[in-house]
Amino acid sequence: MVVPRAYAYEFLLFCQRNPKPCPVLDVTEPGDPVPRYAAPEGDLRTDLPRYRVYRDGELVEEVEDIRGLWREDLVAFLLGCSFTFEAALQRAGVPVRHLECGCNVPMYVTTRLCRPAGRFAGPLVVSMRPVPAEQVPRVVQICSRYPLAHGAPVHVGAPSSLGIADLSRPDYGDPVPVREGEVPVFWACGVTPQAVAQRSKLPWMITHSPGHMFLTDLRDEDLAWEGSNW
Amino acid sequence: MVVPRAYAYEFLLFCQRNPKPCPVLDVTEPGDPVPRYAAPEGDLRTDLPRYRVYRDGELVEEVEDIRGLWREDLVAFLLGCSFTFEAALQRAGVPVRHLECGCNVPMYVTTRLCRPAGRFAGPLVVSMRPVPAEQVPRVVQICSRYPLAHGAPVHVGAPSSLGIADLSRPDYGDPVPVREGEVPVFWACGVTPQAVAQRSKLPWMITHSPGHMFLTDLRDEDLAWEGSNW
Repeated sequence: MVVPRAYAYEFLLFCQRNPKPCPVLDVTEPGDPVPRYAAPEGDLRTDLPRYRVYRDGELVEEVEDIRGLWREDLVAFLLGCSFTFEAALQRAGVPVRHLECGCNVPMYVTTRLCRPAGRFAGPLVVSMRPVPAEQVPRVVQICSRYPLAHGAPVHVGAPSSLGIADLSRPDYGDPVPVREGEVPVFWACGVTPQAVAQRSKLPWMITHSPGHMFLTDLRDEDLAWEGSNW
Repeated sequence: MVVPRAYAYEFLLFCQRNPKPCPVLDVTEPGDPVPRYAAPEGDLRTDLPRYRVYRDGELVEEVEDIRGLWREDLVAFLLGCSFTFEAALQRAGVPVRHLECGCNVPMYVTTRLCRPAGRFAGPLVVSMRPVPAEQVPRVVQICSRYPLAHGAPVHVGAPSSLGIADLSRPDYGDPVPVREGEVPVFWACGVTPQAVAQRSKLPWMITHSPGHMFLTDLRDEDLAWEGSNW
């Protein structure tokens, strides 16, 4: 999430108030495209596979390079991603449907509201993975180890109580099948700030394109609760 | 930690970069003395047993009420405290020396530096509790559950490698005896921002007086890693 310095405090405060969707891994200095802590040899202007540019809350373009848009007052926030804990799920024998299907994870805008901070106010976005019912407790345990990758699920089953009418029509990413004996499990999602900024009509920001992540130098275990700074 | 809004971003960023000494429980709106999340019926101007006022990095007074100092641009940051996990230690049969002695926990300024953020730069402050050698692993496990109360220790034994020459002369709080068969165990401490602000010569701030904490409405378990937002 890249915002002008003028919005940086409110956004960092939004992250503090909503750590499940917005676990902050690193914050750059104004104008510096290098995440000095998480990826000291990286360049946030070029190293993401795809970016989204929003103006006044509207998505205006999707690009693969933002060097031409970079400014000296921009601050980048690196948020953890639930993709991090998927290797741990697979090691425990939990199927990860969107990986099996070779597609992006489905993501949904919910009716659950984030705690607001300044002009940042809006709904929680969740990712969804179908989990065999008997594996749900183990999945909660495994993901709980990764608080900086969205951690434990926020919701198990009952998509309608999140305001999700149709699992086959995600707001971001791709739909995946939920099979007999499986339960849809929902995690807070790092796309949340995009939905929030859209609702808040933030004048200008750049984000990753959903599912098109920046790879840091941090190991999965660096984000595990007993291995991280937490 | 109460600072003018002009320093709030840099301080919140300092907390993000140093979550062990500075786990943020709540941040107030400018001018609002009520922590709406952590203690919605509290008043930070009157509800701490003692405050410290710093000007240009110097401690200028200790007071029991800051109503006369309050300003419309002040932002308060509530940081978790290691006192929170002491009940869990006692439940597990771990002695807590400073409670046995009826005194404040000893705290030391170390030679370990925090990650800087803007004008906030300086040393880590630690609290120390003597732990029987055979209980050290259990203590690590128990405290790890409370990341918002400083979590796992940062250092076990060898005070000299933290730059602590004499355990009997703490920089804050009171000395406690370390007995035969016990190891001094060190935790990141919420007094860190005071030491940092002193070194940084911050023009003006108000803090708690070390050991004189604000009591929130949050339960200990709300700060436990699997119960908290983390």
